[in-house]
Amino acid sequence: MKGLFISLEGPDGCGKSTQIAFMKSSLESRGYDVIVTREPGGTVISEQIRQVILDKNNMAMQDTTELLLYAAARAQLVGEVIKPAVEAGKVVICDRFVDSSAVYQGIARGLGVDTVYEVNAYALQNMMPDITFFLDMPAAEGIRRKNNQHDLDRMELQKAAFHEKVVEGYRQLAQTQKERIVTIDAMKSIEEIRIEIEERLIPLLKQPK
Amino acid sequence: MKGLFISLEGPDGCGKSTQIAFMKSSLESRGYDVIVTREPGGTVISEQIRQVILDKNNMAMQDTTELLLYAAARAQLVGEVIKPAVEAGKVVICDRFVDSSAVYQGIARGLGVDTVYEVNAYALQNMMPDITFFLDMPAAEGIRRKNNQHDLDRMELQKAAFHEKVVEGYRQLAQTQKERIVTIDAMKSIEEIRIEIEERLIPLLKQPK
Repeated sequence: MKGLFISLEGPDGCGKSTQIAFMKSSLESRGYDVIVTREPGGTVISEQIRQVILDKNNMAMQDTTELLLYAAARAQLVGEVIKPAVEAGKVVICDRFVDSSAVYQGIARGLGVDTVYEVNAYALQNMMPDITFFLDMPAAEGIRRKNNQHDLDRMELQKAAFHEKVVEGYRQLAQTQKERIVTIDAMKSIEEIRIEIEERLIPLLKQPK
Repeated sequence: MKGLFISLEGPDGCGKSTQIAFMKSSLESRGYDVIVTREPGGTVISEQIRQVILDKNNMAMQDTTELLLYAAARAQLVGEVIKPAVEAGKVVICDRFVDSSAVYQGIARGLGVDTVYEVNAYALQNMMPDITFFLDMPAAEGIRRKNNQHDLDRMELQKAAFHEKVVEGYRQLAQTQKERIVTIDAMKSIEEIRIEIEERLIPLLKQPK
């Protein structure tokens, strides 16, 4: 039996981690074996790559270097974690996946969405999420919430205009892939968002692919 | 005036470093501004990526992760060092470049030479070497020489059959790109090799591209 692969997307601070905790607990209470992971990271090697990507001292990083590093971290995560788990019938919830690259490097950095998906085709082994939840929140609000939690990393430290482009990019991307990407208004209450996600997930669980 | 971009290729231990030192000194004595760099590495960010690639603990690395990490390190080196230097009229000598990926990941790992050049197209910004010297040496001899120098890294620790494939791969690649890749018998004496390289370099210097 093939499992289910779910990703969550949205600007920093939009509430992905909170919703992932709800999803995990809800799915486990229904008897599913759930693996939660994150990008960039999720394996020993990918976490090492994550450190290079997010290091505040690496401000001189070329846009294509950034694109290729995210793809490299993803290739390791797919091969070592996501693909084996989904093939074993488990549910994988991933905090960010290839759509983050499409938006951050493709749209906000201007490398192009097609280029991003082309490069990432080498990393994905055809593992695209079955469903993606985009938590739509104004960039300034996300950064404000994030700033209260911890020191900002290299990506979070990008200028406000960059983060605006990210949110606008997610909205564009969600429009072109409505069959997979579900847009959720992340300014709603945590509880409202939890219910909305659950309502979209349950039908997929009744008929696991 | 456009400068010159030279790369050296060959199995570990084939004597690239020694010849690079000769080339640098010879070119500088002729008044050229010479930059020597290496792959993976050559910038702060690329050296961080190099550590991830060569870490002996990272034996679980996926082949595509390796391919993408080399391309990421290369993108940074090209953008930060090679391209600006060549455009400023300098001579850049690079210890390994994209042909190493073609051979190690494309042929020895079996990902395919075309795939390697496709992925690397995103990293290169059209910066291909003007000339490449391939120091051809039996794999076992290279590893023997390297083993006397230091502890072996993750790539050097690959099995003997892998290193045999690398040398065979270089020979194939050199056959298909004779206009750029010059094959040198690296079992000859250091002095003979030095002279052979110099004879091929001088004509390029008289008419800098």
